[in-house]
Amino acid sequence: MRPRSARERAAIIRELPLSKVYQLLEPGPVVLLTTARKGLANVMAMSWHMMVEFEPPLIACIVSSADYSFAALKATRECVISIPAWKLARKVVQIGNSSGRTIDKFKAFGLTPVSAKRVKPPLVAECFANLECKVVDTRLVNTYNLFILEVLAAWKDPTQKSPKTIHHCGYGTFVVDGKAIKLKSKMR
Amino acid sequence: MRPRSARERAAIIRELPLSKVYQLLEPGPVVLLTTARKGLANVMAMSWHMMVEFEPPLIACIVSSADYSFAALKATRECVISIPAWKLARKVVQIGNSSGRTIDKFKAFGLTPVSAKRVKPPLVAECFANLECKVVDTRLVNTYNLFILEVLAAWKDPTQKSPKTIHHCGYGTFVVDGKAIKLKSKMR
Repeated sequence: MRPRSARERAAIIRELPLSKVYQLLEPGPVVLLTTARKGLANVMAMSWHMMVEFEPPLIACIVSSADYSFAALKATRECVISIPAWKLARKVVQIGNSSGRTIDKFKAFGLTPVSAKRVKPPLVAECFANLECKVVDTRLVNTYNLFILEVLAAWKDPTQKSPKTIHHCGYGTFVVDGKAIKLKSKMR
Repeated sequence: MRPRSARERAAIIRELPLSKVYQLLEPGPVVLLTTARKGLANVMAMSWHMMVEFEPPLIACIVSSADYSFAALKATRECVISIPAWKLARKVVQIGNSSGRTIDKFKAFGLTPVSAKRVKPPLVAECFANLECKVVDTRLVNTYNLFILEVLAAWKDPTQKSPKTIHHCGYGTFVVDGKAIKLKSKMR
Protein backbone atom coordinates (compact mmCIF):
# COMPACT_ATOMS: atom_id res chain seq x y z
CA MET A 1 0.00 0.00 0.00
CA ARG A 2 1.48 3.35 -1.00
CA PRO A 3 1.78 5.96 1.73
CA ARG A 4 -1.13 8.39 1.82
CA SER A 5 -0.62 12.15 1.64
CA ALA A 6 -1.88 14.48 4.35
CA ARG A 7 -4.71 15.58 2.05
CA GLU A 8 -5.78 12.00 1.33
CA ARG A 9 -5.68 11.11 4.99
CA ALA A 10 -7.61 14.24 5.96
CA ALA A 11 -10.37 13.15 3.59
CA ILE A 12 -10.61 9.73 5.22
CA ILE A 13 -10.99 10.57 8.90
CA ARG A 14 -14.47 11.15 10.30
CA GLU A 15 -15.65 13.25 13.20
CA LEU A 16 -16.66 11.26 16.29
CA PRO A 17 -19.44 12.33 18.70
CA LEU A 18 -17.93 13.68 21.92
CA SER A 19 -20.12 11.30 23.93
CA LYS A 20 -18.01 8.37 22.65
CA VAL A 21 -14.60 9.76 23.53
CA TYR A 22 -14.37 8.05 26.93
CA GLN A 23 -14.56 4.63 25.28
CA LEU A 24 -11.22 5.36 23.60
CA LEU A 25 -9.28 6.43 26.69
CA GLU A 26 -10.91 4.46 29.50
CA PRO A 27 -9.09 1.21 28.55
CA GLY A 28 -5.71 2.89 29.24
CA PRO A 29 -3.87 2.88 25.88
CA VAL A 30 -0.49 4.51 25.30
CA VAL A 31 -1.22 7.77 23.48
CA LEU A 32 0.69 10.53 21.71
CA LEU A 33 0.41 14.14 22.83
CA THR A 34 1.19 16.86 20.31
CA THR A 35 1.78 20.53 21.09
CA ALA A 36 2.69 23.39 18.76
CA ARG A 37 4.79 26.43 19.48
CA LYS A 38 6.16 29.05 17.09
CA GLY A 39 4.76 27.04 14.19
CA LEU A 40 6.59 23.85 15.17
CA ALA A 41 4.67 20.73 16.22
CA ASN A 42 6.20 18.35 18.75
CA VAL A 43 4.94 14.95 19.86
CA MET A 44 5.54 12.84 22.98
CA ALA A 45 4.37 9.41 24.20
CA MET A 46 2.16 9.34 27.28
CA SER A 47 0.62 6.66 29.50
CA TRP A 48 -0.44 8.66 32.54
CA HIS A 49 -3.92 9.86 31.63
CA MET A 50 -7.50 9.14 32.65
CA MET A 51 -11.05 10.18 31.91
CA VAL A 52 -12.54 12.73 34.32
CA GLU A 53 -15.99 13.40 32.81
CA PHE A 54 -18.12 11.87 30.04
CA GLU A 55 -19.45 14.95 28.24
CA PRO A 56 -18.04 17.34 27.49
CA PRO A 57 -15.15 14.88 27.78
CA LEU A 58 -12.59 15.92 30.38
CA ILE A 59 -9.21 14.19 30.62
CA ALA A 60 -6.52 14.40 33.28
CA CYS A 61 -2.91 13.79 32.28
CA ILE A 62 0.59 14.11 33.65
CA VAL A 63 3.17 15.85 31.48
CA SER A 64 6.47 15.96 33.35
CA SER A 65 8.11 19.36 33.71
CA ALA A 66 11.25 17.58 32.45
CA ASP A 67 9.53 16.93 29.10
CA TYR A 68 10.08 19.41 26.29
CA SER A 69 6.29 19.44 25.72
CA PHE A 70 5.58 20.76 29.21
CA ALA A 71 6.42 24.41 28.51
CA ALA A 72 4.47 24.41 25.23
CA LEU A 73 1.39 22.87 26.85
CA LYS A 74 1.54 25.31 29.76
CA ALA A 75 2.00 28.34 27.50
CA THR A 76 -0.35 27.53 24.60
CA ARG A 77 -2.95 25.54 26.63
CA GLU A 78 -3.66 23.37 23.59
CA CYS A 79 -2.76 19.85 22.48
CA VAL A 80 -3.92 16.91 20.39
CA ILE A 81 -4.11 13.43 21.88
CA SER A 82 -3.69 10.73 19.25
CA ILE A 83 -4.21 7.02 19.80
CA PRO A 84 -1.92 4.64 17.91
CA ALA A 85 -2.75 1.04 17.06
CA TRP A 86 -0.11 -1.53 17.87
CA LYS A 87 1.39 -1.54 14.37
CA LEU A 88 2.80 1.87 15.36
CA ALA A 89 4.40 0.51 18.56
CA ARG A 90 7.97 0.87 17.29
CA LYS A 91 7.41 4.48 16.28
CA VAL A 92 5.75 5.21 19.63
CA VAL A 93 8.87 3.97 21.44
CA GLN A 94 11.13 6.02 19.14
CA ILE A 95 8.97 9.06 19.94
CA GLY A 96 9.34 8.31 23.65
CA ASN A 97 13.11 7.80 23.35
CA SER A 98 13.79 11.17 21.69
CA SER A 99 13.21 14.84 22.48
CA GLY A 100 11.75 17.70 20.47
CA ARG A 101 14.61 19.78 21.83
CA THR A 102 16.93 18.19 19.29
CA ILE A 103 14.81 16.76 16.44
CA ASP A 104 11.62 17.34 14.46
CA LYS A 105 9.85 14.10 15.40
CA PHE A 106 7.13 14.41 12.76
CA LYS A 107 9.84 14.43 10.07
CA ALA A 108 12.19 11.97 11.76
CA PHE A 109 9.52 9.30 12.24
CA GLY A 110 7.45 9.95 9.11
CA LEU A 111 4.28 11.11 10.83
CA THR A 112 1.67 12.91 8.72
CA PRO A 113 0.34 16.11 10.33
CA VAL A 114 -3.26 16.98 9.44
CA SER A 115 -4.74 20.35 10.38
CA ALA A 116 -7.03 20.29 13.39
CA LYS A 117 -10.33 22.18 13.49
CA ARG A 118 -10.22 23.90 16.88
CA VAL A 119 -6.54 23.94 17.95
CA LYS A 120 -3.16 24.75 16.42
CA PRO A 121 -1.34 21.42 16.98
CA PRO A 122 -1.98 18.93 14.15
CA LEU A 123 -3.68 15.55 14.23
CA VAL A 124 -1.43 12.55 13.60
CA ALA A 125 -2.97 10.92 10.54
CA GLU A 126 -1.47 7.47 11.19
CA CYS A 127 -3.35 7.19 14.51
CA PHE A 128 -6.87 5.70 14.49
CA ALA A 129 -8.26 8.41 16.78
CA ASN A 130 -7.39 12.05 17.43
CA LEU A 131 -8.73 14.35 20.15
CA GLU A 132 -8.39 18.14 19.96
CA CYS A 133 -7.95 19.44 23.50
CA LYS A 134 -7.63 22.65 25.47
CA VAL A 135 -6.30 22.99 29.02
CA VAL A 136 -9.16 23.96 31.34
CA ASP A 137 -7.63 23.59 34.81
CA THR A 138 -4.06 24.08 35.97
CA ARG A 139 -4.55 24.02 39.74
CA LEU A 140 -2.52 20.80 40.13
CA VAL A 141 0.18 21.61 37.56
CA ASN A 142 2.66 23.07 40.02
CA THR A 143 2.35 20.21 42.52
CA TYR A 144 1.95 17.17 40.22
CA ASN A 145 2.35 18.33 36.58
CA LEU A 146 -1.35 17.36 36.31
CA PHE A 147 -3.36 19.07 33.57
CA ILE A 148 -7.14 18.89 33.10
CA LEU A 149 -8.06 18.94 29.38
CA GLU A 150 -11.39 19.36 27.64
CA VAL A 151 -11.90 17.58 24.31
CA LEU A 152 -13.25 20.08 21.76
CA ALA A 153 -13.39 17.77 18.74
CA ALA A 154 -12.71 14.08 18.11
CA TRP A 155 -11.79 12.17 14.94
CA LYS A 156 -11.64 8.53 13.95
CA ASP A 157 -10.13 6.74 10.97
CA PRO A 158 -12.90 4.40 9.74
CA THR A 159 -10.42 2.37 7.65
CA GLN A 160 -8.72 1.09 10.83
CA LYS A 161 -11.20 -1.57 11.97
CA SER A 162 -11.02 -2.89 15.57
CA PRO A 163 -7.59 -1.36 16.21
CA LYS A 164 -5.60 -3.05 18.96
CA THR A 165 -3.98 -0.58 21.34
CA ILE A 166 -0.85 -1.00 23.45
CA HIS A 167 -0.48 -0.59 27.21
CA HIS A 168 2.86 0.18 28.82
CA CYS A 169 4.01 -2.06 31.68
CA GLY A 170 7.37 -0.37 32.27
CA TYR A 171 10.81 -0.48 30.64
CA GLY A 172 9.60 -1.01 27.07
CA THR A 173 7.28 -3.92 27.82
CA PHE A 174 3.83 -3.43 26.34
CA VAL A 175 0.77 -5.61 26.44
CA VAL A 176 -1.29 -5.62 23.25
CA ASP A 177 -5.09 -5.81 23.36
CA GLY A 178 -6.29 -9.39 23.19
CA LYS A 179 -9.82 -10.66 22.81
CA ALA A 180 -12.86 -8.58 23.67
CA ILE A 181 -15.48 -9.97 26.05
CA LYS A 182 -19.02 -8.75 26.61
CA LEU A 183 -20.69 -8.96 30.02
CA LYS A 184 -24.08 -7.69 31.10
CA SER A 185 -23.29 -4.37 32.67
CA LYS A 186 -25.36 -1.46 33.89
CA MET A 187 -22.22 0.64 33.68
CA ARG A 188 -21.91 3.14 30.86
CA MET B 1 -9.05 -26.49 43.97
CA ARG B 2 -10.79 -25.91 47.28
CA PRO B 3 -11.45 -22.30 48.28
CA ARG B 4 -8.74 -20.83 50.47
CA SER B 5 -9.53 -19.21 53.82
CA ALA B 6 -8.59 -15.61 54.58
CA ARG B 7 -5.75 -16.86 56.79
CA GLU B 8 -4.34 -19.13 54.08
CA ARG B 9 -4.55 -16.36 51.50
CA ALA B 10 -2.93 -13.88 53.87
CA ALA B 11 0.02 -16.26 54.20
CA ILE B 12 0.45 -16.45 50.42
CA ILE B 13 0.58 -12.79 49.39
CA ARG B 14 3.94 -11.01 49.39
CA GLU B 15 4.81 -7.36 49.90
CA LEU B 16 5.82 -5.55 46.70
CA PRO B 17 8.39 -2.70 46.60
CA LEU B 18 6.62 0.65 46.16
CA SER B 19 8.90 1.43 43.21
CA LYS B 20 7.10 -1.26 41.17
CA VAL B 21 3.55 -0.11 41.80
CA TYR B 22 3.31 2.05 38.64
CA GLN B 23 3.84 -1.02 36.45
CA LEU B 24 0.54 -2.40 37.74
CA LEU B 25 -1.63 0.66 37.11
CA GLU B 26 0.01 2.33 34.09
CA PRO B 27 -1.51 -0.20 31.62
CA GLY B 28 -5.02 0.93 32.61
CA PRO B 29 -6.70 -2.16 34.13
CA VAL B 30 -10.17 -2.15 35.68
CA VAL B 31 -9.61 -2.14 39.45
CA LEU B 32 -11.66 -2.52 42.61
CA LEU B 33 -11.72 0.21 45.25
CA THR B 34 -12.59 -0.76 48.81
CA THR B 35 -13.51 1.63 51.61
CA ALA B 36 -14.53 0.89 55.20
CA ARG B 37 -16.89 2.80 57.43
CA LYS B 38 -18.34 1.87 60.81
CA GLY B 39 -16.66 -1.53 60.53
CA LEU B 40 -18.28 -2.35 57.17
CA ALA B 41 -16.18 -2.76 54.02
CA ASN B 42 -17.62 -1.80 50.64
CA VAL B 43 -16.15 -2.37 47.18
CA MET B 44 -16.74 -0.69 43.80
CA ALA B 45 -15.35 -1.17 40.27
CA MET B 46 -13.27 1.67 38.82
CA SER B 47 -11.64 2.46 35.48
CA TRP B 48 -10.87 6.16 35.82
CA HIS B 49 -7.46 6.21 37.49
CA MET B 50 -3.89 7.04 36.52
CA MET B 51 -0.39 7.17 37.95
CA VAL B 52 0.77 10.61 39.08
CA GLU B 53 4.22 9.88 40.56
CA PHE B 54 6.59 6.89 40.66
CA GLU B 55 7.75 6.89 44.29
CA PRO B 56 6.19 7.27 46.68
CA PRO B 57 3.49 6.12 44.25
CA LEU B 58 0.74 8.69 43.78
CA ILE B 59 -2.50 7.81 42.00
CA ALA B 60 -5.32 10.04 40.77
CA CYS B 61 -8.81 8.58 40.56
CA ILE B 62 -12.40 9.65 40.01
CA VAL B 63 -15.00 8.38 42.46
CA SER B 64 -18.39 9.81 41.50
CA SER B 65 -20.29 11.61 44.21
CA ALA B 66 -23.22 9.42 43.12
CA ASP B 67 -21.30 6.31 44.24
CA TYR B 68 -21.92 4.99 47.75
CA SER B 69 -18.12 4.81 48.23
CA PHE B 70 -17.68 8.56 47.74
CA ALA B 71 -18.78 9.62 51.24
CA ALA B 72 -16.68 6.89 52.90
CA LEU B 73 -13.58 7.82 50.90
CA LYS B 74 -14.03 11.51 51.64
CA ALA B 75 -14.64 10.97 55.37
CA THR B 76 -12.09 8.22 56.15
CA ARG B 77 -9.44 9.25 53.57
CA GLU B 78 -8.43 5.60 53.15
CA CYS B 79 -9.00 2.87 50.58
CA VAL B 80 -7.52 -0.26 49.07
CA ILE B 81 -7.13 -0.60 45.31
CA SER B 82 -7.20 -4.23 44.19
CA ILE B 83 -6.41 -5.49 40.70
CA PRO B 84 -8.43 -8.46 39.44
CA ALA B 85 -7.26 -10.83 36.72
CA TRP B 86 -9.73 -11.56 33.95
CA LYS B 87 -11.05 -14.76 35.56
CA LEU B 88 -12.77 -12.38 38.00
CA ALA B 89 -14.41 -10.34 35.20
CA ARG B 90 -17.94 -11.59 35.97
CA LYS B 91 -17.61 -10.69 39.63
CA VAL B 92 -16.19 -7.29 38.73
CA VAL B 93 -19.26 -6.54 36.64
CA GLN B 94 -21.57 -7.74 39.42
CA ILE B 95 -19.72 -5.43 41.81
CA GLY B 96 -20.19 -2.57 39.35
CA ASN B 97 -23.87 -3.37 38.88
CA SER B 98 -24.75 -3.26 42.59
CA SER B 99 -24.50 -0.78 45.44
CA GLY B 100 -23.16 -1.04 48.98
CA ARG B 101 -26.26 0.91 50.01
CA THR B 102 -28.32 -2.26 49.73
CA ILE B 103 -25.97 -5.27 49.95
CA ASP B 104 -22.76 -6.48 51.57
CA LYS B 105 -20.78 -7.05 48.36
CA PHE B 106 -17.96 -9.00 50.04
CA LYS B 107 -20.53 -11.56 51.21
CA ALA B 108 -22.75 -11.45 48.13
CA PHE B 109 -19.90 -12.10 45.69
CA GLY B 110 -17.76 -14.38 47.89
CA LEU B 111 -14.77 -12.05 48.21
CA THR B 112 -12.22 -12.83 50.93
CA PRO B 113 -11.23 -9.79 53.00
CA VAL B 114 -7.67 -9.87 54.36
CA SER B 115 -6.51 -7.31 56.94
CA ALA B 116 -4.35 -4.53 55.52
CA LYS B 117 -1.22 -3.28 57.31
CA ARG B 118 -1.62 0.50 57.17
CA VAL B 119 -5.33 1.16 56.51
CA LYS B 120 -8.70 -0.05 57.80
CA PRO B 121 -10.29 -1.30 54.52
CA PRO B 122 -9.32 -4.91 53.75
CA LEU B 123 -7.35 -6.32 50.82
CA VAL B 124 -9.33 -8.48 48.39
CA ALA B 125 -7.52 -11.80 48.52
CA GLU B 126 -8.77 -13.02 45.13
CA CYS B 127 -7.03 -10.10 43.36
CA PHE B 128 -3.42 -10.56 42.25
CA ALA B 129 -2.34 -7.15 43.56
CA ASN B 130 -3.54 -4.90 46.40
CA LEU B 131 -2.51 -1.31 47.17
CA GLU B 132 -3.14 0.30 50.55
CA CYS B 133 -3.83 3.99 49.95
CA LYS B 134 -4.51 7.21 51.81
CA VAL B 135 -6.01 10.38 50.33
CA VAL B 136 -3.34 13.10 50.20
CA ASP B 137 -5.00 15.84 48.12
CA THR B 138 -8.66 16.81 47.83
CA ARG B 139 -8.33 20.14 45.97
CA LEU B 140 -10.12 18.76 42.88
CA VAL B 141 -12.75 16.69 44.71
CA ASN B 142 -15.45 19.35 44.69
CA THR B 143 -15.03 20.18 40.98
CA TYR B 144 -14.28 16.76 39.44
CA ASN B 145 -14.60 14.09 42.21
CA LEU B 146 -10.84 13.68 41.66
CA PHE B 147 -8.83 12.26 44.58
CA ILE B 148 -5.04 12.06 44.83
CA LEU B 149 -3.95 8.92 46.69
CA GLU B 150 -0.59 7.84 48.06
CA VAL B 151 0.20 4.12 48.12
CA LEU B 152 1.45 3.19 51.61
CA ALA B 153 1.93 -0.54 51.06
CA ALA B 154 1.56 -2.91 48.10
CA TRP B 155 0.96 -6.67 47.91
CA LYS B 156 1.14 -9.29 45.21
CA ASP B 157 -0.08 -12.88 45.00
CA PRO B 158 2.91 -14.85 43.68
CA THR B 159 0.70 -17.83 42.78
CA GLN B 160 -1.04 -15.81 40.06
CA LYS B 161 1.58 -15.89 37.29
CA SER B 162 1.35 -13.37 34.41
CA PRO B 163 -2.22 -12.36 35.27
CA LYS B 164 -4.19 -10.92 32.36
CA THR B 165 -6.11 -7.78 33.30
CA ILE B 166 -9.29 -6.38 31.77
CA HIS B 167 -9.86 -2.91 30.30
CA HIS B 168 -13.32 -1.40 30.04
CA CYS B 169 -14.43 -0.08 26.65
CA GLY B 170 -17.94 0.99 27.70
CA TYR B 171 -21.28 -0.76 28.22
CA GLY B 172 -19.86 -4.04 29.54
CA THR B 173 -17.36 -4.59 26.73
CA PHE B 174 -13.89 -5.38 28.03
CA VAL B 175 -10.68 -6.08 26.21
CA VAL B 176 -8.48 -8.72 27.85
CA ASP B 177 -4.68 -8.43 27.80
CA GLY B 178 -3.20 -10.20 24.80
CA LYS B 179 0.44 -10.86 24.06
CA ALA B 180 3.28 -8.85 25.60
CA ILE B 181 5.87 -7.25 23.35
CA LYS B 182 9.27 -5.89 24.34
CA LEU B 183 10.81 -2.87 22.58
CA LYS B 184 14.05 -1.07 23.35
CA SER B 185 12.90 1.84 25.44
CA LYS B 186 14.66 4.46 27.50
CA MET B 187 11.36 5.05 29.29
CA ARG B 188 11.03 3.77 32.80
